Amino acid sequence: MNIYDVSKKAGVSIATVSRVLNGNANVSEKTRQRVLAVMDELGYTPNVFARGLGLNTMKTIGIMCTDSSDVYLANAVYYLEQELRANDYDSILCCTGTKNSTKKKYMELLISKRVDGIILVGSKFLETKPEENTYIIDAAQNLPIMLVNCYLEGDNIYSAQCDDESAVYSVTDALIKSGRKNIVYLYTSTSQSGLNKLSGYEKALELNHIPMRKEFMQLCHKDILRAKDYLNSLHVQNIPFDAVVTSDDSLAVGALKFAYENHVRVPDDLNIVGYNNSILARCTEPELTSIDSKVEALCSTTVNTLMGVFNGSNVPTRTHITADLIKRNTTNF
Amino acid sequence: MNIYDVSKKAGVSIATVSRVLNGNANVSEKTRQRVLAVMDELGYTPNVFARGLGLNTMKTIGIMCTDSSDVYLANAVYYLEQELRANDYDSILCCTGTKNSTKKKYMELLISKRVDGIILVGSKFLETKPEENTYIIDAAQNLPIMLVNCYLEGDNIYSAQCDDESAVYSVTDALIKSGRKNIVYLYTSTSQSGLNKLSGYEKALELNHIPMRKEFMQLCHKDILRAKDYLNSLHVQNIPFDAVVTSDDSLAVGALKFAYENHVRVPDDLNIVGYNNSILARCTEPELTSIDSKVEALCSTTVNTLMGVFNGSNVPTRTHITADLIKRNTTNF
Repeated sequence: MNIYDVSKKAGVSIATVSRVLNGNANVSEKTRQRVLAVMDELGYTPNVFARGLGLNTMKTIGIMCTDSSDVYLANAVYYLEQELRANDYDSILCCTGTKNSTKKKYMELLISKRVDGIILVGSKFLETKPEENTYIIDAAQNLPIMLVNCYLEGDNIYSAQCDDESAVYSVTDALIKSGRKNIVYLYTSTSQSGLNKLSGYEKALELNHIPMRKEFMQLCHKDILRAKDYLNSLHVQNIPFDAVVTSDDSLAVGALKFAYENHVRVPDDLNIVGYNNSILARCTEPELTSIDSKVEALCSTTVNTLMGVFNGSNVPTRTHITADLIKRNTTNF
Repeated sequence: MNIYDVSKKAGVSIATVSRVLNGNANVSEKTRQRVLAVMDELGYTPNVFARGLGLNTMKTIGIMCTDSSDVYLANAVYYLEQELRANDYDSILCCTGTKNSTKKKYMELLISKRVDGIILVGSKFLETKPEENTYIIDAAQNLPIMLVNCYLEGDNIYSAQCDDESAVYSVTDALIKSGRKNIVYLYTSTSQSGLNKLSGYEKALELNHIPMRKEFMQLCHKDILRAKDYLNSLHVQNIPFDAVVTSDDSLAVGALKFAYENHVRVPDDLNIVGYNNSILARCTEPELTSIDSKVEALCSTTVNTLMGVFNGSNVPTRTHITADLIKRNTTNF
């Protein structure tokens, strides 16, 4: 018997049960009475609960990510595990891949293992068709669902996002203001976060009255060679460009390799901007200017919010964190 | 009720139960009779079992790793998940950190969640004091324990290792034979695998009658700057060296940065060798010669062996896989 049983039997979220236990005013009298009745029936007392969630729950959080070998996601998982452990919670991770049926299956697996909450890492969990996201909304009936760098509206769903759009907007705008005229944008994903980044690029061009060019907006695999090859293909077509903004450091490494092989001077003749400020940005020479997407802050915010939910605090359902531009030696603005 | 219950009640390993079910001769008559009696008591029939483990187990494997943000471990976890999914097994991952008490706690957590087997990734699970490893040996009484790039003797424990010692031996020997005289070895860990690599370096020097020098064998954090700084410190002391062999690509990146800053020509004046053949090896210019430690092969071997254990096949308890040297542009032998 744990808080999950109470919430399930009363037909309310865990957060609501917590609110009742903590005397939070943000619960209707009717709901409060129903929760208290269920607790009575199951032999629960607020006192026992107040002595610590550990007595009544598994103190285990499920984490789902699509790909544990991705540098960004692997770092996020690392920070989440650290933060959870600091709060005395264990965690179990499921790497789901990108197939929707597998994501659903893992969600059910975690719920069957009686975790206290589930954290979904990355915006690849959000599908374009709303009906493919209902499994997330349904799961949130039973336990809090936390989204890291992704947003979905629903009860008992909480999200912490990096402001990807304004990060790409700002750096593109700065490149334009510094005189760069032909800015290529290479991106790896059309996920929610991927589209936000792309829209930052488009907005910067638009507000500076620069026409958008299809050949300057290219979807690539997250792969050094693909990025290099694409820039090479522009080069052999004599399409000039003087800056490359990317949605991932690996693409920026590819841009640097293009420059090296074609004797293009970086940053004098070509500015290059990475994204995520991963270890890759510090491997190259010159080292990459890169956008720090604040994965550690996103993860600690997520865990803080989750602990707040368990304690019945009034937590924000949506948090935005501003990215930082880390200037190194592939830009000169 | 599942195979775990049978093995527990009969006091034998899952592998033994599987062997009995598959009519494998490698079981004593006494054990065979005991297992059959327990199966009878629990209402098991070989037929039901033969229709697929899925009917009787959770079909879930626990994976434990010390640090999910480590590039090598993250890749290993990725390959394990893929292989397990291909075999219709779910997996749950626990990132334990390096504290022994936390490792034990996560092992208990996974066993309590009724996983069918546990895979420990990396040699940081092995402690120097034998009594600190007894929790692994004890767990193996209940379910098969698979070790990826680590070895521990015990019933129902299976290991797949890369031959790290001979990989470092071979590359060091090749450097010596090509005329390199002062070879620095930078390493990140004194884990079992870390010590095997170090011993490969020492053996190559010894067999080539080259005296070992303390200042040429340096333990570093897995960090680009630490490696660069250490080589800088040798340089300012006027201690000449003409090759750097490392236990991780990140240290080799640091060596390359040392060379770049000090105008040392690579590979003419300095040869550099990385380890793990990670994405870092392809980020630099020149790209790194690196030892491919065959993480994908280790993981598929591990999962194949585990499936063999479930099927009662005669599987090897210890497998060695030979590393490959991937020659790129930081060496010229």
